[in-house]
Amino acid sequence: MDRKNVSLLLDFYELTMSNGYLLSGMADVISYFDLFYRVVPDKGGFAIAAGLEQMVDYIKNLHFNQDDLDFLRSKGLFDEKFLEYLKNFKFSGDIYAVPEGTPVFPNEPILTVRAKAIEAQLIETYLLLTINHQSLIATKANRIVRAARGRGVLEFGSRRAAGGDAAVLGARAAYIGGCVGTACTLTDCMYKVPAVGTMSHSWVQMFDTEYQAFATYCRIYPHNVTLLVDTYNVLKSGIPNAIKAFDEYLKPLGIEDCAIRLDSGDLAYLSKVSRQMLDEAGWPRCKIVASNALDEHLIANLLHQDAKIDLFGVGERLITSKSEPVFGGVYKLSAVEDEAGQIIPKMKISENTAKINNPHFKKTYRLFDKESGMALADLLCLHDEVIDENEPLEIFDPDAIWKRQTLTNFKAVPLQVPIFLQGELVYDLPSIEEIRDYCQAQLVTLWEEMKRLENPQKYYVDLSQKLWDLKQSLLLKNR
Amino acid sequence: MDRKNVSLLLDFYELTMSNGYLLSGMADVISYFDLFYRVVPDKGGFAIAAGLEQMVDYIKNLHFNQDDLDFLRSKGLFDEKFLEYLKNFKFSGDIYAVPEGTPVFPNEPILTVRAKAIEAQLIETYLLLTINHQSLIATKANRIVRAARGRGVLEFGSRRAAGGDAAVLGARAAYIGGCVGTACTLTDCMYKVPAVGTMSHSWVQMFDTEYQAFATYCRIYPHNVTLLVDTYNVLKSGIPNAIKAFDEYLKPLGIEDCAIRLDSGDLAYLSKVSRQMLDEAGWPRCKIVASNALDEHLIANLLHQDAKIDLFGVGERLITSKSEPVFGGVYKLSAVEDEAGQIIPKMKISENTAKINNPHFKKTYRLFDKESGMALADLLCLHDEVIDENEPLEIFDPDAIWKRQTLTNFKAVPLQVPIFLQGELVYDLPSIEEIRDYCQAQLVTLWEEMKRLENPQKYYVDLSQKLWDLKQSLLLKNR
Repeated sequence: MDRKNVSLLLDFYELTMSNGYLLSGMADVISYFDLFYRVVPDKGGFAIAAGLEQMVDYIKNLHFNQDDLDFLRSKGLFDEKFLEYLKNFKFSGDIYAVPEGTPVFPNEPILTVRAKAIEAQLIETYLLLTINHQSLIATKANRIVRAARGRGVLEFGSRRAAGGDAAVLGARAAYIGGCVGTACTLTDCMYKVPAVGTMSHSWVQMFDTEYQAFATYCRIYPHNVTLLVDTYNVLKSGIPNAIKAFDEYLKPLGIEDCAIRLDSGDLAYLSKVSRQMLDEAGWPRCKIVASNALDEHLIANLLHQDAKIDLFGVGERLITSKSEPVFGGVYKLSAVEDEAGQIIPKMKISENTAKINNPHFKKTYRLFDKESGMALADLLCLHDEVIDENEPLEIFDPDAIWKRQTLTNFKAVPLQVPIFLQGELVYDLPSIEEIRDYCQAQLVTLWEEMKRLENPQKYYVDLSQKLWDLKQSLLLKNR
Repeated sequence: MDRKNVSLLLDFYELTMSNGYLLSGMADVISYFDLFYRVVPDKGGFAIAAGLEQMVDYIKNLHFNQDDLDFLRSKGLFDEKFLEYLKNFKFSGDIYAVPEGTPVFPNEPILTVRAKAIEAQLIETYLLLTINHQSLIATKANRIVRAARGRGVLEFGSRRAAGGDAAVLGARAAYIGGCVGTACTLTDCMYKVPAVGTMSHSWVQMFDTEYQAFATYCRIYPHNVTLLVDTYNVLKSGIPNAIKAFDEYLKPLGIEDCAIRLDSGDLAYLSKVSRQMLDEAGWPRCKIVASNALDEHLIANLLHQDAKIDLFGVGERLITSKSEPVFGGVYKLSAVEDEAGQIIPKMKISENTAKINNPHFKKTYRLFDKESGMALADLLCLHDEVIDENEPLEIFDPDAIWKRQTLTNFKAVPLQVPIFLQGELVYDLPSIEEIRDYCQAQLVTLWEEMKRLENPQKYYVDLSQKLWDLKQSLLLKNR
């Protein structure tokens, strides 16, 4: 159980293709792959990129051990040359990516790989898996955090997560997206996301009376009290017993900070009456935590009703991103290099035009208004295009090219940074707090209209004239 | 990356409660917890229990190492006695569970724990997580498999899974639910679920022409050919090139078994025309695989249109159970023992009557008609009730007790089996093939009307008269 080797955590076709590249002399063809997504989950205005740190761990450690090779040999499909290749495998390519916590938009590369075909292919599944998963949860968490309008959101979903990684890394991503803590202890231990928790119903039931359960808890943890008040009856029993326990065990110690948790019933009504009872009993600093299948819509609704809730515990609907549990990131070949090192753009033609990728090795800029600091649009360029901030820049809607705008007082910031160059890690991984702060700071540059939960304003990801022209010429050529 | 210690994969409150039990002298109180679910996902007729094997691994290996203890000490909340207790922790209780692959119904225990309070509490999160996750995916997979009406379903979702465990164990659960294979290589290596795969679009794009890509593949893997035919144009280019490659590379070897895969466009139309083209070209045994955001409804619809599809590849909507990504299993205290060993039933009263649990240490029987072999109803009893198959048995709807029925020619089979007794594993874990076969065999005992995807017939989980009486008396007492 304690061992976990993820080298074989890949789709089987990555192996058949890689073996095939090797046997057909194409293994070393330098290839460019973009990882991007096409549609913002929950019809939101943006997503938040996350999962880069786990991608880095994976790339750094990826190797195939004897057991892996023996297993692959047993499939009877792979050449011994390929197994020998895997035995000595070490990723030797380049990876560029947007930092974790960056707001990202459809069709722009979150991550770009430049590597030998065989290497770029072998890492596909894991890259997609880790970026898709954590970006999904960070994005969902941020929606919920926005709905809570400054009140804290705690991630409570481990028990409903799709396995251990979903629990642990989901809690990490939720923190990046703005949650203030998690119930998952391992996420605290591994990733320094503060873990919190006090009691469940079983604690209350284990004692002969609710008061005894509360009193015992207050006696043991006077500085970490959140009493769960809905095991029997919130207003008739839970709150009165909580107040009695606070009076008996916290007041003599001069402790005023404590909390109660509501986990069922009409949270709007119960929170208001509980607030009043607590205030009248002299516990105005006692916080009210609410949980029970919450999401951004229920939280917005509770606050609309003026519910007196200070903290939200959000479980299954966050950790699974229940309303939209798929982040549809894809990994598409955008170019190869010929023997002379010339880049040959590649494009998958699809009957569904939304599925046509942007070809070539690219660079993405985020354009900011110099005066307000707000983000104006993102611009996808060819990798060697240079943007001169001192010259006016004309941008246009790639789907309606007559819609044009000229920017003058702007700043152009490249979105991706080098993570690996020639197989070497060149990126200093930020701490989780730095990632979370960076995310918050980036969100400030997005207009409020884009951060609405419903019908957000669309943010434009434009193509440079050169990239647009190239794409059109390839489309015409491929018809 | 390779190390994975899941001892701290638990909600923080399990630790505060456990420390609290220890300090208040309640750690050793023998407690009974039931793990059960309340609502069948996707409004289906039943769920399929899965995840037991991972639960067994967890319990067998659960221990707290020095790093865990140091971390917990750093939280400043736990008594040294508790850390000392954890240092020597070994699960010493009893666990009963339904075998993996068993169809299970709302409110009946999938798993029952009898253990010291502190032990039963510490294992809560992981038990819920593993059973919830795999039961969700096995249940969803079985819906999709039923929709495919005998055609094979392949699990293709790793890249969209919620992290590595979701990919690997999700594929395992999907196989239990009836899938015939997976794309996930690690699931094959670890759990012997057959992994399959051939090529993605990048393989096709990597070559100068589609034909060259197909020809190279057929040359390398003549016995494992599935050509992806939609990179450019299925009917104008994909199928003709596939036929050309089959003729060139497979025919001379006498190979007739091969396949093509459709991954976009109108799958019904394309599959019919492709079938005709392949048949006319002399490749009637060439199978047609279809993929692209499929689920049970799309598959049923394709077959309703008489699509000529032999195998379905199902990705994101299976691995995330997209339409219903939460399996709401809960873990509820149902009894404790007093110092004399007397069982004292426990019940959580809720304003929501559906959330009131069944108290006491129980035993679940599945009642089968002796003649037809079909399942009639499940019966929850007190643990020491004995059912005499030679006497008529009156059962009744616990929500409408005037609805009564007397069974005569029946067999009563206990659903749960002992897994751990006094901490020792007493259960022989079946192989994955045995689990899958058992699941198939159990499904044969359920009426077709319960297996419908829409509006299935309800199966009854009844309470014995004794259990019903006990529940009522506790409800009255607790009012």
